Amino acid sequence: MKAVEIPSGDSDTCRTIGVAVVSKSPPATGDYDDDLQFTPPFNFAMVDHGIYRSGFPDPTNFSFIQTLGLRSIVYLCPEPYPEANVEFLRSNGIRLFQFGVDGSKEPFVNIPEETIREALKTVIDIRNHPLLIHCKRGKHRTGCVVGCLRKLQRWCLTSIFDEYQRFAAVKARVSDQRFMELFDVSTFKHIPKEFSCLKR
Amino acid sequence: MKAVEIPSGDSDTCRTIGVAVVSKSPPATGDYDDDLQFTPPFNFAMVDHGIYRSGFPDPTNFSFIQTLGLRSIVYLCPEPYPEANVEFLRSNGIRLFQFGVDGSKEPFVNIPEETIREALKTVIDIRNHPLLIHCKRGKHRTGCVVGCLRKLQRWCLTSIFDEYQRFAAVKARVSDQRFMELFDVSTFKHIPKEFSCLKR
Repeated sequence: MKAVEIPSGDSDTCRTIGVAVVSKSPPATGDYDDDLQFTPPFNFAMVDHGIYRSGFPDPTNFSFIQTLGLRSIVYLCPEPYPEANVEFLRSNGIRLFQFGVDGSKEPFVNIPEETIREALKTVIDIRNHPLLIHCKRGKHRTGCVVGCLRKLQRWCLTSIFDEYQRFAAVKARVSDQRFMELFDVSTFKHIPKEFSCLKR
Repeated sequence: MKAVEIPSGDSDTCRTIGVAVVSKSPPATGDYDDDLQFTPPFNFAMVDHGIYRSGFPDPTNFSFIQTLGLRSIVYLCPEPYPEANVEFLRSNGIRLFQFGVDGSKEPFVNIPEETIREALKTVIDIRNHPLLIHCKRGKHRTGCVVGCLRKLQRWCLTSIFDEYQRFAAVKARVSDQRFMELFDVSTFKHIPKEFSCLKR
């Protein structure tokens, strides 16, 4: 049967595509065989339980992404999601949360704090897990959202920047790091206990 | 009460310190307060459910590591584990598996395949989870073990090297990558289903 679109409650900062899957497609890869290989997207990594990050996934990554059993994708670019990706989400019952953050370059930087905050709220909502956060290269926009999540998890800035730089490498931006440093997490009072570093 | 050492079955490739905790210490950090901060070890990351990686943890990292609720540490250097770290493991009921791999530098490289294989067996044994894999800098030895795990998880080499290089950065070694490429995973027939990319 076909996937059915659900009207979704969009806000100023987030556009969503909700899908209900009536019958989930079987994995495209079929049964295991010795030649089967997976291609995670560029800059793919596990952030915490139920949270992954990466660069932009293309169709060569779809069979890998299927293995993650995602419920949602948090997409941080303003550009429309490619039709092939929308179709992949539809047939796998994955909901798309789009937060349009411009990929502005230094020194013309304007990281929209409210949008990052809304994205972070979506990321920590365990009803959306497992989820994948991605932008274009998985460096700056994704790096900022993950860095703010780490602040919420009470990581010291040194460790937050260590992680940010691992993904951004030579493209690391002082402005992103300053954004994370200034990001106020005091309004986030309730963090899900499932997060590794808040588990007792 | 005090932790009690259990005699452990050491093999040629692995030395273990087993501990039974009679009464687990409470987290050293006490209750949450606004000033509480965690310092993950250098190069810390989540590899998969129940598997973490990092550089050598020092006492400033202990309160963070406590939040992971580790059952084991897989330590990949031949040097003795520092007394402060042994004490930390004892008081938290964490078992140490030590696989002494020399930190040899190119071009004098000799990665002991059998030792890496034994380490990997320990890593994928879910009875040891959650566990932390570490060496000195979390780059080469840890990178090789994680890379071999990714082969087992059927990642393509491009993605394995992308991840390896993210941690090794300018210290990435062609010899490590060649080792991972040649590593034969055909003898590992049963991979725990819990791994993200083998979940259906």
